[in-house]
Amino acid sequence: MGSESNARGVFVPALTPFRRDLSVDEERFVDHCRWLLAEGARGLAVFGTTSEANSLSTAERMSLLERLIASGIAPRVLMPGTGCCAFPETVALTRHAVERGCFGVLMLPPFYYKGVTDDGIFASIAEVIQRVANPRLRVYLYHIPPIAGVGFSLPLIERLLKTYAGIVVGLKDSSGDWKNTKSLLEAFPGFEVFPGSETYLLDALRSGGAGCISATANVNPSGISELARNWKSAGAEALQRRLAAVRAAVQKFPMIAANKAILAGLRDAPEWNAVRPPLHVLSAEQKKQLFAELEALQFGIRPRVSA
Amino acid sequence: MGSESNARGVFVPALTPFRRDLSVDEERFVDHCRWLLAEGARGLAVFGTTSEANSLSTAERMSLLERLIASGIAPRVLMPGTGCCAFPETVALTRHAVERGCFGVLMLPPFYYKGVTDDGIFASIAEVIQRVANPRLRVYLYHIPPIAGVGFSLPLIERLLKTYAGIVVGLKDSSGDWKNTKSLLEAFPGFEVFPGSETYLLDALRSGGAGCISATANVNPSGISELARNWKSAGAEALQRRLAAVRAAVQKFPMIAANKAILAGLRDAPEWNAVRPPLHVLSAEQKKQLFAELEALQFGIRPRVSA
Repeated sequence: MGSESNARGVFVPALTPFRRDLSVDEERFVDHCRWLLAEGARGLAVFGTTSEANSLSTAERMSLLERLIASGIAPRVLMPGTGCCAFPETVALTRHAVERGCFGVLMLPPFYYKGVTDDGIFASIAEVIQRVANPRLRVYLYHIPPIAGVGFSLPLIERLLKTYAGIVVGLKDSSGDWKNTKSLLEAFPGFEVFPGSETYLLDALRSGGAGCISATANVNPSGISELARNWKSAGAEALQRRLAAVRAAVQKFPMIAANKAILAGLRDAPEWNAVRPPLHVLSAEQKKQLFAELEALQFGIRPRVSA
Repeated sequence: MGSESNARGVFVPALTPFRRDLSVDEERFVDHCRWLLAEGARGLAVFGTTSEANSLSTAERMSLLERLIASGIAPRVLMPGTGCCAFPETVALTRHAVERGCFGVLMLPPFYYKGVTDDGIFASIAEVIQRVANPRLRVYLYHIPPIAGVGFSLPLIERLLKTYAGIVVGLKDSSGDWKNTKSLLEAFPGFEVFPGSETYLLDALRSGGAGCISATANVNPSGISELARNWKSAGAEALQRRLAAVRAAVQKFPMIAANKAILAGLRDAPEWNAVRPPLHVLSAEQKKQLFAELEALQFGIRPRVSA
């Protein structure tokens, strides 16, 4: 296998539970994160898009990370999202994560202005790295142009890798475009690339990818982790087909609300449904359809047993 | 004229000056704001897109607003931008602005998630209004879909106006689409609509609009304010043509950097050029072209005299 990095496997962009008043339910969050790790997840990419991280204040994000670590979850499995529009906030969150021992951070580019140049995004990332100025910093770039509206081109990544070798070490590719993921894997051997969906997990691992970081790992952590462990086994193709079918069913619905609805069902905890605006909960009809889709796939039994 | 609201005229989305280390130059900001008001601006829409507000931390925004008010600028001329992705931050900035006596706030919808529903945006604005819970709150909606990626549809505005009559009172329309501005003016008489460009100022005023909130008001405050005052005069059409020509020249370049370059030139203060990433300064060639365009329009003399 050669030299495997620490960041190989399934990282879960853990959902953030809210109370009815939309305050963060820190205790439920810790329980969820513990369950994800117990189910086989390699680590937690907390504060991602699926986590509604940009709907949290920087103070809420810091408090939640402290709570997670205080609860006994090892910082070496944590890859918190830290990229904000304003670099002082990205610096503060990144510094906090590194000082708490998180093995890496997942960094969005500043996403308010659109049509910005590669030079501008390079300068944004550089500003943060230089201000954090900590040799333990490991940056995973977060490429999600369908939502952020801006992203990391191949020439930009090449420049970052050359300038910040050993600091910029990987990327989550949520372009939804396998061709882009494949181009990255071919262009930058050793760069730790995670597709943003388990649908590409087997292809990614076979091409030298690091694993995946996927929203549906919140509800299917054991299934996805099984493929990440046994991707060279005879049953890998069948495992992959199964994962893709579950993912396809869930992503017919708004992803974050759908994942929360599934957890609400599995845990018999309607509180799990809550999302912060501008998102909203699934309608009763959507929930019915979603559960019917999952039932048809005989999905739901495994997590229920583990819960 | 009927009952004119307080918010009639030119509001400037004041540029935020940075030092070479990219810290906010609060003193230069205060000087700039004073100059804009002395040149005839009705008020200051500080912390807008042109102000690079989303490149500032919430703490920097609060500090800057405090400084402005402490320097003697009346809160009754201030319409600070307060809309963030996370409602706790929008609530904090909005509450701060209202408590300091600002006559209104300019509120972006949460802009991270794309493809969200009108219901989701309604809930976002409602959450803020209900939590701020201050009868003095006046919300101006900030519609800038080309940058925010989300915006305020007519049915959504209608719902907000019905639910929060007297609180949601106006809108800045930076769609760049005069047809949208006109639709708003026709649909909601009395709603204080500001196009995001002085190019539509005369049309807007003739159709019942409130004025304009325009980036280039940072460098042409007296010209734009003159039209806002004298839009019924015989010379209004000529004034409008002149404003549109200056605007067209500036917007051939990245707007924020171009406005800062003009101020750097007018003030002989190269520090004014600084922008935070992901934006960057104009190249020497771009500056040369920009200044040549303005020279051809004989623009630059008026602000130089006033400065």
